[in-house]
Parts: sequence; C-alpha cells; structure tokens
Amino acid sequence: MRKRVRVLHYGVGPIGASIARLAREKQAVEIIGAVDVDPAKAGRDLGEVAGAHDAPWGVPVSASAEEMLAHSPDVVIHSTTSVLPGAMGQLYGCLEAGACIISTCEELSYPFRKYPELASQLDEMAKEEGVALVAAGINPGFVLDKLVLTLSAVSQRVDRVRATRIVDAAHRRQPLQHKIGMGLSREEFEARAAEGSVKHYGLPESVAMVADGLGFSLDEISEIIKPVISDKAVQSEFLQVASGAVAGIHQVARGMAEGEEKIRLELKMYAGAEDPSDTITLEGAPNITLTIPGGTHGDTATAAVVVNTIPWILAAPAGLRTARDLPLSFFSAATSL
Amino acid sequence: MRKRVRVLHYGVGPIGASIARLAREKQAVEIIGAVDVDPAKAGRDLGEVAGAHDAPWGVPVSASAEEMLAHSPDVVIHSTTSVLPGAMGQLYGCLEAGACIISTCEELSYPFRKYPELASQLDEMAKEEGVALVAAGINPGFVLDKLVLTLSAVSQRVDRVRATRIVDAAHRRQPLQHKIGMGLSREEFEARAAEGSVKHYGLPESVAMVADGLGFSLDEISEIIKPVISDKAVQSEFLQVASGAVAGIHQVARGMAEGEEKIRLELKMYAGAEDPSDTITLEGAPNITLTIPGGTHGDTATAAVVVNTIPWILAAPAGLRTARDLPLSFFSAATSL
Repeated sequence: MRKRVRVLHYGVGPIGASIARLAREKQAVEIIGAVDVDPAKAGRDLGEVAGAHDAPWGVPVSASAEEMLAHSPDVVIHSTTSVLPGAMGQLYGCLEAGACIISTCEELSYPFRKYPELASQLDEMAKEEGVALVAAGINPGFVLDKLVLTLSAVSQRVDRVRATRIVDAAHRRQPLQHKIGMGLSREEFEARAAEGSVKHYGLPESVAMVADGLGFSLDEISEIIKPVISDKAVQSEFLQVASGAVAGIHQVARGMAEGEEKIRLELKMYAGAEDPSDTITLEGAPNITLTIPGGTHGDTATAAVVVNTIPWILAAPAGLRTARDLPLSFFSAATSL
Repeated sequence: MRKRVRVLHYGVGPIGASIARLAREKQAVEIIGAVDVDPAKAGRDLGEVAGAHDAPWGVPVSASAEEMLAHSPDVVIHSTTSVLPGAMGQLYGCLEAGACIISTCEELSYPFRKYPELASQLDEMAKEEGVALVAAGINPGFVLDKLVLTLSAVSQRVDRVRATRIVDAAHRRQPLQHKIGMGLSREEFEARAAEGSVKHYGLPESVAMVADGLGFSLDEISEIIKPVISDKAVQSEFLQVASGAVAGIHQVARGMAEGEEKIRLELKMYAGAEDPSDTITLEGAPNITLTIPGGTHGDTATAAVVVNTIPWILAAPAGLRTARDLPLSFFSAATSL
C-alpha cells in the first residue's frame, strides 16, 4: 500500500465537520490537523469539534493556518466561505505550502467568468507549485453541471438545457435555513436578498460551466432570487415558518445567446417542498431527461463528493481544475490510491 | 483554430455509418477515408455508403486498411466486431500507424478480467506509439457503468449496485434484432444462445468496470441469457414476432463477493417492451436512484458517444483507456479542440 494521503481540514463548520467525519473512514487518508479561527474550536481535538462518535482522534484544531501548513499536507480540504475574493489569501497560503486543495467555495467552482483575474492567479500559482486545486460540491459541482455535461455525452446535438433542483429545507442545517431566508417576512427577505445575505451561491457558475462544456457562446448570464411564501405553518428543528412567511428561495439562473434562453437552472429550496428531486432535460437530438427522485441530499452528498475528489485531484495536472475536467466517482474506503 | 482532427472510419456497418454521418457535422473533424472489406462498399464514396443526405463526400472507402492508414489519421473510429480477439490485428495496425482509436468493440470496453494479456499488449503497444485507445458506446460504456460511477461520486458508502436497461427492440436496426433472437422459437433461441450468436456483449465488462471503480473485490462475474416470449404478435420493419415466439432477450450479469450479490446489471431488450428506461440504484449511504425515462436510444446515442469521445481520447495519456478514466461530455460542433 502506498503512503496515506495527508489531509488538513481548513474550516470546521457544519460542512467541514461532516467532511472530516467521512474522511476519517477512508483507510487511505491520514488527517493531520485542522484550522479554524473560532475560539470555541481552536485548541481542541478535531474529532470532538466534528462531533465524531469515535472522538477524540488525537488530531489538533489550530487557529493558525501557517502552523498547520508547516506539516506539509498533501491535500487541504477548504470549507470557510462561499465567496472567492475572501478566500484568496487562504488558498494562496495552501498553494504556497505545496498542497492540493479541494474547496467548497461555490464561487471557485467555475470562476473564469466572474473573476477571470483571480482564476488566472490561482492557476499560475498552482502550476508554479506543481499542485492542483478544485471546488467540489453538489450544487455547484454535480447535479446542475457535472451531471448535465456527463449526460450530454449521449447527445448528437444539444439546443437547450433545463435543470431543476427541488429541496425540502425543513430538515437541513441551520446556516442553510438562514441562507434561504426561512421564517422571514417578505420585506425582510427582499432586503436581505438585495444585500446578498439571503442567497444560494453557485448557479451562475454552473451555467458558465455547462455553456463552455457544450460550446454555447453566451451573451449574458442573469440570476433572480424570489421568496417562496408558505401557505401553511412549517416547523423545523431550528426555525418556525408561519403561514404567509418566507419558506425559502426560488432562484433561477439563465444563460442567454442572441436573445434565446440556452440554459435555465432553477433551485427551489424551501421548508415543506413536496416531491424533492433533481431533474435534467437536454433538448436536441435526442431529447433526453434524467431524474433523481428525492434529489441528492445536499449535506451528506457534499461531504461525499469532496472526499471522493481526493484521488482525482492528486492525479490531476497542476493548475486550477473544475468538476468538468475530472472523471469523478466513488473513492472506496479500501482504496490505497 | 487548430488543425482539424483527421479521422478514419474502420468498418461501415449500420453503426459505423451513423457515426460517420455525425462526425461529418463536426467542423473540427476532417474525415480522410474509410475501410470496409465488403465488396458492396469498397471503392465507393463514404457519404453514399453511409446513406448521407449530402453525399457524395469525396471520401473513399477502401478494402485495404494498410492503404488508408498510410494517410496518417489522428483518430481511427473502429466498428467491426463485438469480440476482442478478432479485432486485435485491426487494432494493432491502427496503433502501429500512430493513430488513437475509439472502438465500438464491446469486449474492449473493459478487457482486464476476460483478456488480461490482450489488454496488456494493447496498452504496451499504445504507450510505445504514444497514442491512446478506448472503447466507447452506450452499453457498455455509459448507462450501466460510466453513469453508475459518476453517480457514485455523491455516495458516502456503496453497498450494492443495481441497474436495469429496458429497450423496445421493435424499432431497432436489423442486426440488433437478429442478435437478440427476435422471431425465433424458444428452442432455436436456446441453441443460438448456447453457441453465442444470440447475445448482447458487454454486461460482464460493465460489471467489472463498476466493481473496480467502487473497490469491490469480486469472486465471480456470472451471466445468464433468457428469452422473452411474446404474449402478442409484434410487427417490426424487418421481422414479425408471432405470439409465443421469442420477442428478445433478458440478460442478467451479476458480480458476487463472498456469496453476496454486489452488482446486478439487467438488460431487457425485446420487441414490444413497455416503459423503456434506464434505471440505476445505489444502495448505501445514501440510497440513491437515477432514471432516464424512455431510456437512452442505443444507436443514435452510440454514434453520439463515439464522436463525443474524440477530444477526450486525443487529450488522454497514452495507453489503453476506459470510459471510467475519461471525463466524457458533448463535443460541440463548433469546438476547435
């Protein structure tokens, strides 16, 4: 068996914690440490912070990235923010330490359109260091982009793409429920959506990835965010939604070419959503539809796709990669890489 | 724009012809010729042999592979047989000419278990020549293997895989209808299945690809072929199936580990099949099901996936590749590679 992959977890929020718990199950992985600036986490054991049943792990959480990166991880799993500019310093530090990165930063999933300069800088730095980085996740990163492109392998011609993800948010983690405005009044929702604190990140990135993969030259990518108003009272573990209050979001991103809608990606994420599902339709030759009834579970599946990306990012050419480039699949617990 | 990809079509049966017609639509492709030993085809124009609406193309079909390979194609699209040993000489010739190969040979899709020596020989020869070869198709190559592995990227744990492909064969090409025994009596079917002339090739290859991708150590891959007896008269363009006669096949391939069925792939291909569909179920954490209602059309989709593989095989590392290795997606007509 080859040497185990030395992994550092950078950010131990709910998603980072679930990734760490799953990574712990892989025999081919050795978790060497974690970074989190939260004083309630730094200085403790990662297994305890992550709520693992087999804690303690004897793995430290440090507030200092510099200190942990000095231990030369092979891969950093980065889960601190949705917004790329705020992550640049952290990503730079990891690349300078010679580590590959798998990040859950939604805006890193396909940054070439919104942040072409930041994308170039990351790509150049990664190539200088001989390592690769990629953002991984479910949305963006899988159901509305990678799976769309994979399905398109059976298309003789693709004229138009529609994909819809419907998620019942009633049983999701609290930060997600806040992010989609659950429980707010319509006015509060509109105000927070306008300031950007109520929003799911990543749909325009998925539109861009799909467009480039299919050879669509888009003139414009637009996005709208609307509240879904609850017509009944819904109770979740963390929040109560009164009838008439906001149950969640309905977000639509569109890719337009010469006035025509070529790509339409929709996310409906709200408490009490009926018939959750992921559905992709390719119009062209032939027309083809793919459905995942019940949908892909956002949190457990995000942890899965991040951990499953470990062997692929180690094998990838140096530079900034995307889900589009990698032949993703399951990373067996027993795999010795 | 880069130089166009020079493509040679090796084998112009119904599948080879549909691939050639689709390849013709790609601006990034230049078809330099075709090879077919059939005296009814050799010496004619490929566009005419392929039944293209814009024939003639001014592209020759030759009976001599040697003659056509001397024109240095970048990629050979090989579509002559389902059986690997019979294809070895042809594949060798293409590799020696320094061409990448995309083949529809089902047994080449994942040959490591049934033909480990032939697989090694092809891999070594391809590496010596600095080119890559792969088998591409829908089944094997996509719905029961590549798509299964892609979906598994969202799995934290996979315990068992089931996938079923149901195809209505009433409207498919004549060679396929013969291959599945349409119109035979049960006794004729059993005799031809025993001798191997009634059979769909590729299910054990898909089982092996999925097993290796998921890290399952299989003790055995088994396969059974049963007739589907028609309970009504069914008329196709080429054949008539009386009530009580064979409408087609029901084939099941199973991958076993320690007495447990880890992988079960089923193909039901018969005239009059209701609710055609492709369905994949991964049992594990989480359980997840994916469905393509109506199913992936075997012939048009095979042409699509073969042509869509062109940019990926050119970019692949030298050697024998499989659908598992390649991040397949649509090959835009406008792509300059």
